[in-house]
Amino acid sequence: MNLVIVGSIAIDDVETPHGRREYSIGGSATFASLAASKFTQTGIVGVIGNDFPEEVYQYLKSKNIDLSGLEKVEGKTFRWKGVYNDINIANTIDTQLNVFEYFTPKLPLNYLNTECLFLGNIHPQLQLDVISQASNAKIIACDTMNFWIKGTPELLIDVIKKVNILFINEEEIKQLTNKKNIFAAAEEVLKLGPEYVVIKKGEHGAVLYSKYIKFFVPIYIVDNVIDPTGAGDSFAGAFLGYIAKIGKFDKASLKNAMLYGTVAASFNIESFSFDNLGQIELTDIDKRVNELKELISL
Amino acid sequence: MNLVIVGSIAIDDVETPHGRREYSIGGSATFASLAASKFTQTGIVGVIGNDFPEEVYQYLKSKNIDLSGLEKVEGKTFRWKGVYNDINIANTIDTQLNVFEYFTPKLPLNYLNTECLFLGNIHPQLQLDVISQASNAKIIACDTMNFWIKGTPELLIDVIKKVNILFINEEEIKQLTNKKNIFAAAEEVLKLGPEYVVIKKGEHGAVLYSKYIKFFVPIYIVDNVIDPTGAGDSFAGAFLGYIAKIGKFDKASLKNAMLYGTVAASFNIESFSFDNLGQIELTDIDKRVNELKELISL
Repeated sequence: MNLVIVGSIAIDDVETPHGRREYSIGGSATFASLAASKFTQTGIVGVIGNDFPEEVYQYLKSKNIDLSGLEKVEGKTFRWKGVYNDINIANTIDTQLNVFEYFTPKLPLNYLNTECLFLGNIHPQLQLDVISQASNAKIIACDTMNFWIKGTPELLIDVIKKVNILFINEEEIKQLTNKKNIFAAAEEVLKLGPEYVVIKKGEHGAVLYSKYIKFFVPIYIVDNVIDPTGAGDSFAGAFLGYIAKIGKFDKASLKNAMLYGTVAASFNIESFSFDNLGQIELTDIDKRVNELKELISL
Repeated sequence: MNLVIVGSIAIDDVETPHGRREYSIGGSATFASLAASKFTQTGIVGVIGNDFPEEVYQYLKSKNIDLSGLEKVEGKTFRWKGVYNDINIANTIDTQLNVFEYFTPKLPLNYLNTECLFLGNIHPQLQLDVISQASNAKIIACDTMNFWIKGTPELLIDVIKKVNILFINEEEIKQLTNKKNIFAAAEEVLKLGPEYVVIKKGEHGAVLYSKYIKFFVPIYIVDNVIDPTGAGDSFAGAFLGYIAKIGKFDKASLKNAMLYGTVAASFNIESFSFDNLGQIELTDIDKRVNELKELISL
């Protein structure tokens, strides 16, 4: 497997200023793997309940996503209910862990040789469990959220110490490091161990920060943001899918990865669930990447 | 004169999360001309009262700014009082027009040959008066604000029709055009006449938009934003000062102008009034421009 993604697979109930979708398939692993699979062979590690729609399972499989690490167990799939009054801010109304409550991630044999691992936003203990199994991984990236920064900071720091790349929101890195300047905050994270920090600034773009590369990308502006759920996961999925595909970590590749992440997120937010992200092709992504390059090139 | 700037010269009372400055010299023409004068010979058109500090008048003169278009009349200088609770949002507490109430701008003889004209944020009728006098101007740029968009929209549209470049805040261009996508909004402005629109997104950078060039620049991040008053004016001043100096309008020059504008604003906001902007040299600006180039270059 070129890229293994661990994270949530969820059934969401989402309300945005553009409408409402009940039974909207979501989850960090879902969005990240759909974005990554445009670039490279991708496998999921996660868990679903026996209520998970079989047609969605088959759809993911048809999209070049390996599901041998996706456990199906008795019970209900993870549920999340959220409302976006402001299109940039998700308010969680309800979370039901369901089958996630007793989930222990296990990497199937065909995943063990993976060189690239993405730990989507789940409990830091689960992220650590996966790291310990993926002993061949040369690139380990993780995402997280304020819930874990506040709730399990020590465990989260343990995760961050073990990864090469941290994906994190602007507000969250400020909260994590207690620094208000994002560059100073990123410096604090680098001290913990990661070589790269990707700071996601929502509608204001993203910054890649490391000792030897600092790179800013604005968003690709779309006419209608229908549902931002999964934008960060799509970003990370495309970023890592691209890196896993080309197998290089030089400046130009990392900058391209930032552009691919940005564009994947732009497709993601144009529909509920993965309606749009699922159907687009790499050529669609390339087209927007070229437009974005035009917008920022000196 | 290479660049003529018309706008306000003000005595402000500013309160930010970093403190308060009473009797803080401000005004759109002040900030814009201090930024522009790093690049080129710059003249101000404006008015001050007989309460205006002589040492500030001499200071501006010492900074390569021509003050022959700055009238000194009986009465009090324009006053503005504002509070920034959020560092990004100015709340106007009080405005006293004073000598601005009956001001009629007159271009002195040595300004009449100017090829580059900046109409800072003042009453659109005053902007029109100046345009009618500057018949040799090949590049006319203007700034504006929500107050005029709401209060005198027809006059403002008349101004916009006559300028080559419109500088405008993100929220204001959305308000002006009734479009929420900034690119769609910029297209509406281009239909009115300008060849270029510069959309200022505050702490989220700026976008240059025209038929043949779309370019995004993030801000230059500073450790402490002390007082954002005048950031937009410094941006426009440096942008136009650079353009007036090199006399070219090609893609590379316009992109550089965006970088110079961004960096001038970054120096401006690091102090109250023009404490910082006044004392920096072009070499300081170039250093930050190079850092910014590094941050965004592909």
